[in-house]
Amino acid sequence: MSAGGIQGLPGEFELISRYFAPLSKGFPGAFGLRDDAAVIRPASGRDLVVKTDAIVGGVHFLSDDPPDLVARKALRVNLSDLAAKGAVPRAYMLDLMLPRDIQEAWVAAFARGLAEDQAEFGIHLIGGDTDSTPGPISIAIMAFGEVDIGRMIRRDGARAGDKIYVTGTIGDAALGLAALKAKLPGLNPASAQFLIGRYRLPSPPVRLGPRLVGLATASIDISDGLIADLRHVCEASAVAADIRSDHVPLSAPARSILAEDPGALRTVLSGGDDYQILFTAGPAAGGKITDLALELGVSITAIGEVTSWSGQRDQRITVLDAKGHPLMLGSEGWTHF
Amino acid sequence: MSAGGIQGLPGEFELISRYFAPLSKGFPGAFGLRDDAAVIRPASGRDLVVKTDAIVGGVHFLSDDPPDLVARKALRVNLSDLAAKGAVPRAYMLDLMLPRDIQEAWVAAFARGLAEDQAEFGIHLIGGDTDSTPGPISIAIMAFGEVDIGRMIRRDGARAGDKIYVTGTIGDAALGLAALKAKLPGLNPASAQFLIGRYRLPSPPVRLGPRLVGLATASIDISDGLIADLRHVCEASAVAADIRSDHVPLSAPARSILAEDPGALRTVLSGGDDYQILFTAGPAAGGKITDLALELGVSITAIGEVTSWSGQRDQRITVLDAKGHPLMLGSEGWTHF
Repeated sequence: MSAGGIQGLPGEFELISRYFAPLSKGFPGAFGLRDDAAVIRPASGRDLVVKTDAIVGGVHFLSDDPPDLVARKALRVNLSDLAAKGAVPRAYMLDLMLPRDIQEAWVAAFARGLAEDQAEFGIHLIGGDTDSTPGPISIAIMAFGEVDIGRMIRRDGARAGDKIYVTGTIGDAALGLAALKAKLPGLNPASAQFLIGRYRLPSPPVRLGPRLVGLATASIDISDGLIADLRHVCEASAVAADIRSDHVPLSAPARSILAEDPGALRTVLSGGDDYQILFTAGPAAGGKITDLALELGVSITAIGEVTSWSGQRDQRITVLDAKGHPLMLGSEGWTHF
Repeated sequence: MSAGGIQGLPGEFELISRYFAPLSKGFPGAFGLRDDAAVIRPASGRDLVVKTDAIVGGVHFLSDDPPDLVARKALRVNLSDLAAKGAVPRAYMLDLMLPRDIQEAWVAAFARGLAEDQAEFGIHLIGGDTDSTPGPISIAIMAFGEVDIGRMIRRDGARAGDKIYVTGTIGDAALGLAALKAKLPGLNPASAQFLIGRYRLPSPPVRLGPRLVGLATASIDISDGLIADLRHVCEASAVAADIRSDHVPLSAPARSILAEDPGALRTVLSGGDDYQILFTAGPAAGGKITDLALELGVSITAIGEVTSWSGQRDQRITVLDAKGHPLMLGSEGWTHF
């Protein structure tokens, strides 16, 4: 791990040894962050699955968000991808770009957040870089996971007739961001707190992901929004999809917002930042999926079906209402034709 | 590869498919950057060596530096570490944080720079993320290399009696940065151009690094400065070092600057950004090192010797002049005691 010139903090190497080196403990190939690089090797018969995602203050999080939650979000948006690909997370590297006026307490809380999630997910920090920036706090994470050779769950395996499933509840984070931006004035404080918490700290189903290998035909994590990510899967798989808006799993706060303002369905389906898994599976897999959901205590909901694609761009994804009538995405949200 | 909201550019996915996806061609595990993660597996009997380093506009490069050189610098500062660790580079991931007013031409030139270095070093882009930032251009690279299992060259293997070697010439980049900042007013334009070029585009000895496995006892890339990085090796190895300032290899422009201003030795020895390799090797290895330098056409120079450490902090690194008298680092640079 190396560090470059941040004022207002203890010496850069001191910073690393105090806050980051302890996070590498237990991973021999990290060499205690005291060398220039790390060594990693997948177990025999396994592939390494690698992913990087960066988050930027003012774009992906708000600069006064609690630093421990910022750290955990930076990590989890990457673990979310590993989970969707069926990989067991093992390690990560971190590039931390900090404004010159950052306080040591911020770094301490940030490192504490990393430590919490390391314990929760069984991973280690194995390398990184700290730099100063004249811009906002910026955090790049590269995550390493493992999957059996050739078994990473791809986007492109969905087939007509497959069921479409999502984990958890959808739309909470996007509604939470709207609440943070005071765009949901009628919202009661408890609901606002719940939704904001879901925006600040995603909970990707990390234990579920590896269990979907051999069960899911295609998978993606929902970050751009349910519709956009389902479209990615359909495009890669050369198929189309019908989903039922009333089958999309909602939290109680989201449900009451939708009851008052049906137009909020647009935010739910397209807002993104869910960090849940969307996957497809053959019709015969339903029983196993129910068992898995029960075993792991993860909510998994069927929301629609993969169909064959006619070739017309605007018919890739069809959203149906409770009566099976298609809805149209207009400037006011999803409405009836 | 994923992308998040940059205005003034073609659609984000279009940006990736136009400029970045082609850079993944030839690496099957990158899935054409059309999936959420990549797959990489070291060859049998090999370890993956992983490294990440970020560079930030206004800190590590100047915002009007040519974008192709910025790209290549971002890549090379990572390849430099892999080389120093004895690893053959294979692939990299890229997080690119761009201001909203960035032009497509900048991205095109940036990608062209990556393509050039991919061809030069035989590597591929296997994943990444593009994001908008309210701050300066910020680039995080994670590089993957390979080395025989357990053979990564560490910092901590230097032993008293080993010779200390450096590749290339030292100090050019730091003098180039000084020239860019108009701190070397008497410098002739040709020399300035040479030194600035060395600052903007480091040339780490990527082919040499893997050949040092089994020959070097310790190794590091020179990024913080010759003295600082030698100190890292000595601290990790629990040894000390004597170097001869007159043996430190200099380019002709650096030599003439030093002839006029001996105080510039401080910039040369401590300025950093060299991205050359500093390594130690047993006295018996001298012949093989000479042969290797000739075979690869890489300049390798012995600059001193590893000594045993007395335990006194200020005696870790001793810089000697041409007569073998110790120099002292004062506020004016290296001077006689």
